Amino acid sequence: MNTNEPFIGMHKTELDTPALLIDLDKMEANIETMASYFSTVNADLRPHVKTHKTPIISHKQIAAGAIGVTCAKLGEAEAVIHAGIRDVLIANQVVGPHKIARLINLAKHSEIMVAVDNFENVQAISEAAAAKGATVRMLIEVNIGMNRCGVEPGEPVLKLAEKVRQSPNLKFEGLMGYEGHTVTKRNQVERDAAAREAMQHLLDAKHYLEKQGVEVSIMSGGGTGTFNITGSIPEMTEVQAGSYIFMDSTYGNVEGVGEQFDCSLSVLATVVSRPSPNRVIVDTGLKVLAKEFGIPQPVGVNGVELTGLSEEHGTIQVSDENVSLKPGDKLEILPSHCCTTVNLHDRYYGIRQGIVESVWDITARGKAQ
Amino acid sequence: MNTNEPFIGMHKTELDTPALLIDLDKMEANIETMASYFSTVNADLRPHVKTHKTPIISHKQIAAGAIGVTCAKLGEAEAVIHAGIRDVLIANQVVGPHKIARLINLAKHSEIMVAVDNFENVQAISEAAAAKGATVRMLIEVNIGMNRCGVEPGEPVLKLAEKVRQSPNLKFEGLMGYEGHTVTKRNQVERDAAAREAMQHLLDAKHYLEKQGVEVSIMSGGGTGTFNITGSIPEMTEVQAGSYIFMDSTYGNVEGVGEQFDCSLSVLATVVSRPSPNRVIVDTGLKVLAKEFGIPQPVGVNGVELTGLSEEHGTIQVSDENVSLKPGDKLEILPSHCCTTVNLHDRYYGIRQGIVESVWDITARGKAQ
Repeated sequence: MNTNEPFIGMHKTELDTPALLIDLDKMEANIETMASYFSTVNADLRPHVKTHKTPIISHKQIAAGAIGVTCAKLGEAEAVIHAGIRDVLIANQVVGPHKIARLINLAKHSEIMVAVDNFENVQAISEAAAAKGATVRMLIEVNIGMNRCGVEPGEPVLKLAEKVRQSPNLKFEGLMGYEGHTVTKRNQVERDAAAREAMQHLLDAKHYLEKQGVEVSIMSGGGTGTFNITGSIPEMTEVQAGSYIFMDSTYGNVEGVGEQFDCSLSVLATVVSRPSPNRVIVDTGLKVLAKEFGIPQPVGVNGVELTGLSEEHGTIQVSDENVSLKPGDKLEILPSHCCTTVNLHDRYYGIRQGIVESVWDITARGKAQ
Repeated sequence: MNTNEPFIGMHKTELDTPALLIDLDKMEANIETMASYFSTVNADLRPHVKTHKTPIISHKQIAAGAIGVTCAKLGEAEAVIHAGIRDVLIANQVVGPHKIARLINLAKHSEIMVAVDNFENVQAISEAAAAKGATVRMLIEVNIGMNRCGVEPGEPVLKLAEKVRQSPNLKFEGLMGYEGHTVTKRNQVERDAAAREAMQHLLDAKHYLEKQGVEVSIMSGGGTGTFNITGSIPEMTEVQAGSYIFMDSTYGNVEGVGEQFDCSLSVLATVVSRPSPNRVIVDTGLKVLAKEFGIPQPVGVNGVELTGLSEEHGTIQVSDENVSLKPGDKLEILPSHCCTTVNLHDRYYGIRQGIVESVWDITARGKAQ
């Protein structure tokens, strides 16, 4: 009997708290909805591991049609490759000798692909790959308006593509751009315009390369907020959406996206104090709930608002004194940002119709290197 | 050879990133400074585990004179009690049958003490302790103005104290109040006035009990921002300061406190991209740096400002184009909130004069239950 087995079969309200719950029916519906969309367009889905950080969920996404996965960090890539997944994109720069050595090791066990935006980095990966007889696939990250990483479209992309193509043990696959500055724009018309403007930079970069005779096989980008914008562009070959698996109150409010997916993630809390009729204190603070996208809110209870999160406590203001919450009572809180909330927890409790069906360790939690 | 041993003796800049560093000389100086203060006043120090979450650091604090430790969560108490520490206060309510069972189990191996603010909770702990033949020490948490948990001073405290005194297998020890709404007030005069006003509520509660013949042995409160305010009140018997061990940019700016302690904690980052002369991207985002108290800043580099943190990236604006930071370069970032930043990491690298001296697992990281 493993240490998770005693939880199986319990009702979710019997779980001790704070606990991170997945509504399995809703998660599976989200997987199905996204897979259905990508069966209708040219682009494929390459869902992001950074949201759930758990190989079994990646496998479910692949079983539903995803072509592989996207990772933010080498530690996530190690987790999924050790779990048997081979088509893995690290959608960030892998920099420094330790990390490049790990990348090359992974290339021996997978068809790993990495984003690059710098000549010296390309050179270093090529040399390390050559020394080990490995091949690393590369996408050039293009700055399409987010102003984070990435080279500028046009000549800078061409020069770096030539560098990749001329370097031993590398394979130039194509381009990547992330329209992260557009994905949570609530208004559908504004988001559509902003995302298309951003992706146009990536298309321009592709056309520039093709005019010079450089073949661009892969065009990668997109997020949950733009899955059906970026995903509908015929020249895009893959979309990196991640949050759709769980959703949260931020994406839930994004028009044209929030309606299509259910929020499948929640944090179970216990009331630890009811010091006054209008104040309820729960055991979920900043160490189990991220708040950079706003203070998360309870679900399924009317007349309450979570107004403050300190390290270990949540403070709920009660506007309806008939709210009966008392110490020991449990309630669920909907995260405002699923990705950073998951990173605070060690395991999921998978719930179906109220009963614990599975307990999954969050294998890549904290794997920030 | 354990898995941490290869790091010992490396220069800190050889470590892969993100990495959480402790400057051991500075941490030890902070322990000494705080211990020296508490050798001059009536109150003792009961430092908080929630900041460092690591038993070896608690042992160092006790070796320097602390009477025991404060914990936020049962999981922290389990970590330190399993490491041999016996005088442990859980400064929050322990609610629900699972948690109460764990509390009683700990009472068999320690002189554990817990905060209470509710009759039914006192009753439940008493019954569970009686069933196991254990004794649990109790402090009544008093609301002294923070408006989180705690009963109101006066008659409500008296009634709950009588309940504790009359319940089998419980020992009423005294009162606890946390002036958390005052500890980070920057101005010393304002903080002093606010903290003394808050603590007066706790003193009033004590005097009220004593008039009714109830002995109050322990008076517990305080934080790093009020250590020498609350700590100087003759009737206070102990102070729960935690952050002083590491400090951060928030407490570093608190007048009368920031000057006395050095910031001993930092997050080592690697530059992953320098897309333009005025922009540097590092590999430290919200999954390794908390930002609820403001965006943390690099130390030791002039002409740079960390202006944005996304999940995996930090964006640094460079105002001096002579800043030579390029991909692969490393820099240290000073957290703005040490407690929540520590909770994002699995281990500390203890650095002395630039060299890794020790690697400590953060035993109670994520122990939110």
